[in-house]
Amino acid sequence: MRPSGRATDEMRELSFETGYAKHAEGSCMVKFGDTHVLCTASLESRTPPWLRDTGKGWVTAEYGMLPRATHTRGDREAARGKQSGRTQEIQRLIGRALRAAVDLTRIGERQIRIDCDVIQADGGTRTAAISGGFVALHECLRTMRDAGLIETLPVKDTVAAVSCGLYKNTPVLDLDYDEDSTADADANFVLTGTGGVVEIQGTAEGEPFAEEQFLRLMRLARIGCDAITAEQKRVLGLR
Amino acid sequence: MRPSGRATDEMRELSFETGYAKHAEGSCMVKFGDTHVLCTASLESRTPPWLRDTGKGWVTAEYGMLPRATHTRGDREAARGKQSGRTQEIQRLIGRALRAAVDLTRIGERQIRIDCDVIQADGGTRTAAISGGFVALHECLRTMRDAGLIETLPVKDTVAAVSCGLYKNTPVLDLDYDEDSTADADANFVLTGTGGVVEIQGTAEGEPFAEEQFLRLMRLARIGCDAITAEQKRVLGLR
Amino acid sequence: MRPSGRATDEMRELSFETGYAKHAEGSCMVKFGDTHVLCTASLESRTPPWLRDTGKGWVTAEYGMLPRATHTRGDREAARGKQSGRTQEIQRLIGRALRAAVDLTRIGERQIRIDCDVIQADGGTRTAAISGGFVALHECLRTMRDAGLIETLPVKDTVAAVSCGLYKNTPVLDLDYDEDSTADADANFVLTGTGGVVEIQGTAEGEPFAEEQFLRLMRLARIGCDAITAEQKRVLGLR
Amino acid sequence: MRPSGRATDEMRELSFETGYAKHAEGSCMVKFGDTHVLCTASLESRTPPWLRDTGKGWVTAEYGMLPRATHTRGDREAARGKQSGRTQEIQRLIGRALRAAVDLTRIGERQIRIDCDVIQADGGTRTAAISGGFVALHECLRTMRDAGLIETLPVKDTVAAVSCGLYKNTPVLDLDYDEDSTADADANFVLTGTGGVVEIQGTAEGEPFAEEQFLRLMRLARIGCDAITAEQKRVLGLR
Amino acid sequence: MRPSGRATDEMRELSFETGYAKHAEGSCMVKFGDTHVLCTASLESRTPPWLRDTGKGWVTAEYGMLPRATHTRGDREAARGKQSGRTQEIQRLIGRALRAAVDLTRIGERQIRIDCDVIQADGGTRTAAISGGFVALHECLRTMRDAGLIETLPVKDTVAAVSCGLYKNTPVLDLDYDEDSTADADANFVLTGTGGVVEIQGTAEGEPFAEEQFLRLMRLARIGCDAITAEQKRVLGLR
Amino acid sequence: MRPSGRATDEMRELSFETGYAKHAEGSCMVKFGDTHVLCTASLESRTPPWLRDTGKGWVTAEYGMLPRATHTRGDREAARGKQSGRTQEIQRLIGRALRAAVDLTRIGERQIRIDCDVIQADGGTRTAAISGGFVALHECLRTMRDAGLIETLPVKDTVAAVSCGLYKNTPVLDLDYDEDSTADADANFVLTGTGGVVEIQGTAEGEPFAEEQFLRLMRLARIGCDAITAEQKRVLGLR
Repeated sequence: MRPSGRATDEMRELSFETGYAKHAEGSCMVKFGDTHVLCTASLESRTPPWLRDTGKGWVTAEYGMLPRATHTRGDREAARGKQSGRTQEIQRLIGRALRAAVDLTRIGERQIRIDCDVIQADGGTRTAAISGGFVALHECLRTMRDAGLIETLPVKDTVAAVSCGLYKNTPVLDLDYDEDSTADADANFVLTGTGGVVEIQGTAEGEPFAEEQFLRLMRLARIGCDAITAEQKRVLGLR
Repeated sequence: MRPSGRATDEMRELSFETGYAKHAEGSCMVKFGDTHVLCTASLESRTPPWLRDTGKGWVTAEYGMLPRATHTRGDREAARGKQSGRTQEIQRLIGRALRAAVDLTRIGERQIRIDCDVIQADGGTRTAAISGGFVALHECLRTMRDAGLIETLPVKDTVAAVSCGLYKNTPVLDLDYDEDSTADADANFVLTGTGGVVEIQGTAEGEPFAEEQFLRLMRLARIGCDAITAEQKRVLGLR
Repeated sequence: MRPSGRATDEMRELSFETGYAKHAEGSCMVKFGDTHVLCTASLESRTPPWLRDTGKGWVTAEYGMLPRATHTRGDREAARGKQSGRTQEIQRLIGRALRAAVDLTRIGERQIRIDCDVIQADGGTRTAAISGGFVALHECLRTMRDAGLIETLPVKDTVAAVSCGLYKNTPVLDLDYDEDSTADADANFVLTGTGGVVEIQGTAEGEPFAEEQFLRLMRLARIGCDAITAEQKRVLGLR
Repeated sequence: MRPSGRATDEMRELSFETGYAKHAEGSCMVKFGDTHVLCTASLESRTPPWLRDTGKGWVTAEYGMLPRATHTRGDREAARGKQSGRTQEIQRLIGRALRAAVDLTRIGERQIRIDCDVIQADGGTRTAAISGGFVALHECLRTMRDAGLIETLPVKDTVAAVSCGLYKNTPVLDLDYDEDSTADADANFVLTGTGGVVEIQGTAEGEPFAEEQFLRLMRLARIGCDAITAEQKRVLGLR
Repeated sequence: MRPSGRATDEMRELSFETGYAKHAEGSCMVKFGDTHVLCTASLESRTPPWLRDTGKGWVTAEYGMLPRATHTRGDREAARGKQSGRTQEIQRLIGRALRAAVDLTRIGERQIRIDCDVIQADGGTRTAAISGGFVALHECLRTMRDAGLIETLPVKDTVAAVSCGLYKNTPVLDLDYDEDSTADADANFVLTGTGGVVEIQGTAEGEPFAEEQFLRLMRLARIGCDAITAEQKRVLGLR
Repeated sequence: MRPSGRATDEMRELSFETGYAKHAEGSCMVKFGDTHVLCTASLESRTPPWLRDTGKGWVTAEYGMLPRATHTRGDREAARGKQSGRTQEIQRLIGRALRAAVDLTRIGERQIRIDCDVIQADGGTRTAAISGGFVALHECLRTMRDAGLIETLPVKDTVAAVSCGLYKNTPVLDLDYDEDSTADADANFVLTGTGGVVEIQGTAEGEPFAEEQFLRLMRLARIGCDAITAEQKRVLGLR
């Protein structure tokens, strides 16, 4: 029934390739099927102004999409002279999600900036970005430990994200573009490896949906995030 | 236990004053306690370009805050030359929420623009804006009917919104600024009068929260939205 | 003869409501008939860079208009990404006018920022803003005195402003929108309570006007500013 | 007593050089002493959108200053990415002033754009720009007549402008930079050749001034504008 | 002697991977050693306004760099709100270079937009972008032919580009970052497959260089462009 | 054969007028025929941030064009809110060219900013700007020496620039607008007085050109730069 032939609770093929960007302190090319996002983590030696002299660091994110990552070319935001509301909303979400993974009091007065650039888009770019951004962030923390900047990895938990939605009134996991563009409802979930909820965003595209439908989407999200978490751990060599 | 002395499931004092703005096709000054938002609805004779020749209209929203609506003065966005990511995120949310209230195929190729300007802020400005914006929108539709532009009101349902959160680990309804600034989690709910879910946005500010906690927040939101809906109907003279 | 039925030297109904904005150090909702402007005064602990180490403070102003304050909705300046020339011209005028009221050497190296936001417009927004801005500024100075930041109020004089114009070739006081939009000439006067001239701006909209006509406008302005000054003093409890 | 040794009612040396810019439909390099402004008039074949199908044309102005026209270099507005409030205020003034000279119903649905660029500044750049802008505009109208676009020159009157001020409490004509930077009050007058008032802008820089002082400034302005008008007529060959 | 151990006339390892971007009409991931640029060609159905009704089409280019393509993270241009002078200079160069490859009168009133996004930078990004951009453009023309929009490929010649420079006073081919950052002179050459010169840009970074040195750089460029051309032809299956 | 009747190796009439701008530390109005550029040099007491504490100074340039310097009026960049890619490309070129003239280690931690504003354009504005900018820079260095800021002039060599091109397939020197707008190729050369090459930029406008043609353009450039250098030396009183 799904255009891709997937079962309703089936993820697209997942992959995380670490070390993709030669210069970055951490990096990961994440693929959720045909959605490909390059995530890099850049260590900066200063924390933002509002955290000066608190001993605390910060994690922030920026998000972009190559103009022809999509079916029809989108304007280049640098040429238009501003980031769209959608872009800003997504990068604020990624930043909040990844800060939930790290004990910011244990990275010193530094900032880690996660850049998530969509190389190719086929639905779910923000959830792929969060999932891959976690891997890049983790690699960056290892680089910091290996450089003696921190003693142990200040990771509180893994973080994964996935989108679910009502496609032809059926709850399905990990929407691709064909599904997303016609879905009746769309929800993004950010969950930790131990099951905590970091962020939930559900939107009815057309008709309002019922609470029970929302709970079924949440159940699908748990299935998807478990799969993502397992793959993140495998790639990072976590037990 | 709450700074305001309210019960955990108690709303702030609510009021909706229609006809506040002399020139607008519809308007409402909404107050959730000390949060005051002026909502105006402006009828425009053209639908956005992407809807030309579809027979469909559109509802959109803009959001702003007077610089000294807050405890300490914020920059004027017009002077800074751009709207913040937060502003854009909020106005996109208001627009989506209000479009759920109207049958856009029945307003003709027109646009209704809802301006929500925060005159005074004390937490929950976006949910007050949605709740008051619905009233302004409804008034505008009546103006359109009285002018003979439409025959009947194309209202599908009422729309109300409220924020809930975990304050000192207890779920509470309708956060004010004192609570919001220290809450562990914060969730905004947009619900229709008949109980449908239009939008859910939940964020863990510090520690991830559990699914059960989220469900308790949703229950509080239903209590709050019922009270808001009742007051909206009373003011609008709906049965 | 005037659309409103007023005599040529008759002001619209005036009111100044202090303490309108809960958070501001001083505030005033001023009404000149249907023109309503919310004026807030915000105390900032630093003087502008060019006054550092001079012992002098500064008073500045910003001006804005809610998009639907007017008959037809205007673009939101924050969304357009810049303030119009008109806005900048007005806020520069307000700032100059209010600096004439205060001995800047006696407020310390601080800045007081006056925000004037037009909630509803019916002509004369800039003169209402100056007149109400003076009240907000005066309230702010009292807050500073009560907080022990200054010993006495460094007020040199009261400041009031009004517009006059040639309507159907007759000089009239305090133009409302109907008059302003068809006036042959338009002049704004900023006067002190003791009769000094702070600013004069007269513009021929169509045909040039004669010097005698200008002098008659100035005489009307004195009548209007006397009435405004009296009301400002009454509200502020000045003798 | 004046730094320049001029009498209180003495203008600086005036000159208008027409035909300065090879490509423009009209042009004039105007000099008020060491203040040099290049004014060009460019004919555009379309009237602004709000005048379409009215048969009316428009005259507008833009103003700029070379970065090193002044004692210390100013930022280049093109590099800063926006025109200052001062620039916008001045170019709006120039446009209003020059529209008073022309019968806009007799130039067809065209626009004449007057560019006033300050090559060197020594006080009074806006009044020099208006006075020189009139000459450029007049030349442009002649070019239009010679090209057969109009039959007769649609000039209603000449337009001249000058600044006066209180320098060490004495009213003086045509302030230069040394005077302007320390003046107690500063007023700009735009007058027609036949004595009509187009625009008056008077500002107290420090203390408010008295009405009689203002009238004396106006009298000086008449002397100055008479001299400017005479020179404009001489250069343009008007009787 | 070169940091990389290459001979003075030796290119880095070259590769062109076509079909890299799923959605684009033409695409190529080009690698000059560790410099990786993703080039996509997007077909747009309208020519730019200045070519309307001429029967002619256009080829243009945009250039960007992922923030962490470089050793230290650069600002994201979309976030800064403008493209740097360097970016604009490069994208203008790429556009000019690629227009030399195509007979613009034979693609109809269409535009082909080449996006060159640097995924990883190690010197020579603009020349890699031109060389890879040609391949993407060629693929796009084939897509157009296969879709029946054009009958034959309107390719006038292949286009390749390479940078040369004086490294420790020795002319070397295809500078990498280590060489480029300390080079005494730097020159970019854009040449056609049949030997024509499309663009030459040579800059002395420190001391001026002699004409003979420049001629030696040009000779190296011919060697490099021959190698690039051969590889382009191989990948495109041109004889 | 040339529209101007000049020989193929003949420059337009050259003139350099120093001391044109009263306030600047150095200035020069340069004319290449009808191309007139006002160049000013402004001394700033601080070096750019990246040179702090290196003992080194900097020379930079900005470029602008009066809106009606050209045949048809161009938009004012300050009004459009950004400098075009062309403007930025030119000002970067001017800056690089002039830095080649000065020993930056000998001017102290200061910056000299060269503003080049085109008063009238007839082709070759960037090369005129470089040639005149050198004269303004040299005057500024003399002002610095006379003020005791430096002991001797830190000038390494003179710098001149000229454009050459293929006009109707014939190499010609110093293109004017009529030639430039139809040229087949266009090359700018920046040369030092002793013959060193500072910058070469050659572009084929239509068909690629041959290497021999390029060498002939370079020979013409030497002829032109020799003439410019001689005139620069004469005006500056250099032997």
